[in-house]
Amino acid sequence: MLHPLRSHIESVSQLTDEEFEFVLSHFTPVKLKKHSALVREGDMVKHEYFVMKGCLRSYMTDADTGKEYTYQFAVEHWWISEREAFVKQIPAATTIECMEDCELLALSYDNRLKLGRELWKYEHYLSTKSALGYVALQKRLQLLLKGSTKERFENFVQQYPHLYNRIPKSIIATYLGVSRETISRLYRK
Amino acid sequence: MLHPLRSHIESVSQLTDEEFEFVLSHFTPVKLKKHSALVREGDMVKHEYFVMKGCLRSYMTDADTGKEYTYQFAVEHWWISEREAFVKQIPAATTIECMEDCELLALSYDNRLKLGRELWKYEHYLSTKSALGYVALQKRLQLLLKGSTKERFENFVQQYPHLYNRIPKSIIATYLGVSRETISRLYRK
Repeated sequence: MLHPLRSHIESVSQLTDEEFEFVLSHFTPVKLKKHSALVREGDMVKHEYFVMKGCLRSYMTDADTGKEYTYQFAVEHWWISEREAFVKQIPAATTIECMEDCELLALSYDNRLKLGRELWKYEHYLSTKSALGYVALQKRLQLLLKGSTKERFENFVQQYPHLYNRIPKSIIATYLGVSRETISRLYRK
Repeated sequence: MLHPLRSHIESVSQLTDEEFEFVLSHFTPVKLKKHSALVREGDMVKHEYFVMKGCLRSYMTDADTGKEYTYQFAVEHWWISEREAFVKQIPAATTIECMEDCELLALSYDNRLKLGRELWKYEHYLSTKSALGYVALQKRLQLLLKGSTKERFENFVQQYPHLYNRIPKSIIATYLGVSRETISRLYRK
């Protein structure tokens, strides 16, 4: 079976076995237990992570109200990091937490640049996936701006059926920007 | 004076004069009058545009309510396109309209790929700018999820002081997802 990271890259650029071995040699495996933090608010973020197994979320807690806001989920074969901190090399503004036991592949900032420089296909993979990530985020923003609570929920269920059954509904509520009561009502329907 | 497109690329990768001439030879100048549409809903989108002069916005009209939602503004030295339609080569879901007379540089989808393939620095510029664009969009989403109307408005004014004085406040309201009455009240303060 193809390595999941290879499948992910090959959705953009085909690689030879040698090229993929070269790519993989820049990654380091990381194992984390459920409830542990991959990134804490204030940390310098030196890596981005490809998820081999498990489920994570990034969130921020409002200092005044104590309310949590979930910004991103990640499961198998998704990338996650505190993107702003990683890209700009500034301290993290959000926390990334393991919601299950996790196995990740870590790529350092320097190795990311090196891979892109030494293997054009990797740079092209980055630019293509970033563009698609931007589009996905734009659709989420459109839904947040325009959609009703019900539409946001239905869209989430339709887009991510595997997350809907895996993640506690109280946390999905903090992702959709709706109250816990509202989400319970929507789940019952 | 450095060409604005060259400055933009050189914020990521330094170019020689020859390299910039090569890049620029892939662009086509476009002039459009105020109120004209650069992209209409349903169009196939074959280009992305670098703004030399003028101001544009992309928006969608809700079929049921007739309400408008503004997704993006662009002024001098920003890129604009119907990103999803351009990246995935599917029909446009939003309209892009000139709010002033505009001068643009158009880059076709094929030339974008060609430039990235033939000049690594251009591919690296794309991947870096896409990553930064993603981060900027993420911050907007965070503010939409978490910020009060007042915070969203203040953040907009602080982040884009030049847009705040240039764009009608009724349109800024459709970008921030607040009512026209609310925005008038905030402007008075």
